Amino acid sequence: MKNKLLVVGTMAYDAIETPFGKIDKILGGAATYIGLSASRFSLDCGIVSVVGDDFEKKHLDLLEDSGIDLSGVEQVKGGQTFFWRGKYHNDLNTRTTLETQLNVLENFNPIIPDHYKDAEIVMLGNLSPDVQLKALGQLTSKPKLIVLDTMNFWMEHFRETLDQVISKVDLISINDEEARQLTGEYSLIRAASQIHDMGPKYVIIKKGEHGALLFYNNEIFCAPALPLEEVFDPTGAGDSFAGGFTGYLTQTADISFENMKSAIIYGSAMASFTVEKFGTENLVNHSPKMMAERLRAFKDLTTFEIQLE
Amino acid sequence: MKNKLLVVGTMAYDAIETPFGKIDKILGGAATYIGLSASRFSLDCGIVSVVGDDFEKKHLDLLEDSGIDLSGVEQVKGGQTFFWRGKYHNDLNTRTTLETQLNVLENFNPIIPDHYKDAEIVMLGNLSPDVQLKALGQLTSKPKLIVLDTMNFWMEHFRETLDQVISKVDLISINDEEARQLTGEYSLIRAASQIHDMGPKYVIIKKGEHGALLFYNNEIFCAPALPLEEVFDPTGAGDSFAGGFTGYLTQTADISFENMKSAIIYGSAMASFTVEKFGTENLVNHSPKMMAERLRAFKDLTTFEIQLE
Repeated sequence: MKNKLLVVGTMAYDAIETPFGKIDKILGGAATYIGLSASRFSLDCGIVSVVGDDFEKKHLDLLEDSGIDLSGVEQVKGGQTFFWRGKYHNDLNTRTTLETQLNVLENFNPIIPDHYKDAEIVMLGNLSPDVQLKALGQLTSKPKLIVLDTMNFWMEHFRETLDQVISKVDLISINDEEARQLTGEYSLIRAASQIHDMGPKYVIIKKGEHGALLFYNNEIFCAPALPLEEVFDPTGAGDSFAGGFTGYLTQTADISFENMKSAIIYGSAMASFTVEKFGTENLVNHSPKMMAERLRAFKDLTTFEIQLE
Repeated sequence: MKNKLLVVGTMAYDAIETPFGKIDKILGGAATYIGLSASRFSLDCGIVSVVGDDFEKKHLDLLEDSGIDLSGVEQVKGGQTFFWRGKYHNDLNTRTTLETQLNVLENFNPIIPDHYKDAEIVMLGNLSPDVQLKALGQLTSKPKLIVLDTMNFWMEHFRETLDQVISKVDLISINDEEARQLTGEYSLIRAASQIHDMGPKYVIIKKGEHGALLFYNNEIFCAPALPLEEVFDPTGAGDSFAGGFTGYLTQTADISFENMKSAIIYGSAMASFTVEKFGTENLVNHSPKMMAERLRAFKDLTTFEIQLE
C-alpha cells in the first residue's frame, strides 16, 4: 500500500503575461501544481479543493490520469472557478496581480474524504488560514508531517488565524520577503529562529532564482536553484517545489533532516521544469530521463572537494 | 620556493557607516583586503599600489607582518591616501558613496618590482583599466592565471580600455548587476556566455548573500554564502573573496575547474569572516581553527545525498 499525501489548496484558471508571451486561460492553482508535481513519485495523492462547473473535463482528466484522487474536489453547480490574472515584469522576479476573482473559493468548505484523514503527509497549499484550520480539524490521526505554504496577504489581514495554523504545523515553506514580513527580522537566520518559536520545527525559506534554505534546530541546508538560460513563466514554481518536496518525503516515508535535503533537491528540480514553459506543460511532460539528468546537474552544480581536518 | 601572487590594487582609508555603528577612518582598499586574505595561504604575495605620506606605519607593519611584500607600494611625499566614505542601508545589500577623494590614486603609475614580473597568478583589483593595462604590460612571462575585478563606474566611462583589459585576462570576477550591465543580458548564463566571448575563459558572478557562480565552458558551479546571523560591515567582502580565491590557487598551483571550486569556497569563507566585524579586523584575527570550522560549515551547508542513475 502506498503512503498517502493529502493536498489542500486551490484549483484555478490563470491568465498570464510574461515578456515572452501571453495566455488568456490556462490551468493553474496551488493544489494543481502540487498534485501534478507530487504524482511523479510513488504515492497515493488526494486533492481537496473546489472548482466551478466551468472547470473543463480535460483538466480533471489530466489530474486523474496522473494518478491523483479527486474525490475531495467539490464541483459547485453554477459556480465559476477561481481566476487569477497576473503580469510578470522584465526581470521575472516580480509580478503584478491584475485581477483576482475568488468565485467558488469564497465559500469553500473543505471536506476531507475518509480515505485521506489518516494521510502520512499533509500539504496545505497557499489558501485562507480559516480553510486550512478546518482541514486540519478533520484529520483522525496525527500525520508524520504537516507542511504549510502561505503568503503576505494572509499575514496582513488574517494574522491571528494564521498564527493558529502555524502553531499546528511541522514545517512552513515561504519566501524570503514573507519570512521577513512574518517576523520583522531582516536576517533570515533570525527570522527562521522566530518562526521555530511559533511552532514549526522546520522552516524552508525560498529565494527564487537564488535557491532555498532549510532550517532545523541549529542546522542549515542551502539548495541552489538551477541556473536556467531562460525562465519562461515562473507561475507555479513554489507549488511545484512543494509538490516535489512532499512527494519525495511521502514516497520514502522518511522525514529526517538528511532526507529532507534530498527532498528539497527533488522539489527544486520540479520547479526548474515548471518555469521552462507556460503553466503545467513541462511539469507534466518531462521524462524520467530528463529528471535523472536534472538531478545530476544539481549534484554537479554543488559538489566540491575540500580538505577538512 | 613559494609560488608568487601579484596583487595590483588600491590601498585606502575608509569611513564607514552601517546600521550597527560608524567609524571615521579605517584601513581599506582592494589590495589591502586581497593581500591580507591571500596571505593566510602559503605563498609569496606582493602588492603594487600607492599611498600618501599620511599612511600610517602601523598599517604598513600590519601588512608586512602578514608576510606581504610592499616593495611595489609607492609612498608619495606630500600626497594623501585614497579616501572613501560610504553608508550602508538597513538591508546591508545596498550602499551609498558619500565621498571619494582619489588623492594619490589620480596619478598612480604602477611599477611592478622585477621579482613579481613572473608571478604565477596576477590579481587585478578594482581600479582604473588604464592602470590595469599598464601593469599587465610589465609582466615578463605569461602567468598561469590573470584575474580581474572591476565595477560599473569603469563600464560606464572607460568601456574601451576596460574591454582591452578584459580581452587579456583569464578570469573575471564581478557581481550580478555588473555582469548584466556589461552585457545587457538579464540571464546570468547568457551574460557569462557573452563575457566568455570577450576573452575570459572563466567567469565568476558574485551574488552577495546569495553566494557566487563560476562559469567555465558549459559547466557551472554554485557556491553558497554562509548564512550569518549578523552582517556587521560588508566592506571588503568581494576583495576578501578574491584574495582567498587567488591565494588558494597560488598555494596549490592548480587552476583546474575542480580546484577552482575549492578556491571559491576558501574565498567565500574569507568573505564571511570579513563581514562579521568592521574593516579588516576579523580577516586578520581569525584562527586556523575558526577557518577549519567554517570550511566544515560550508560542506555541511551544501552536502546532500541523492540516487543518481
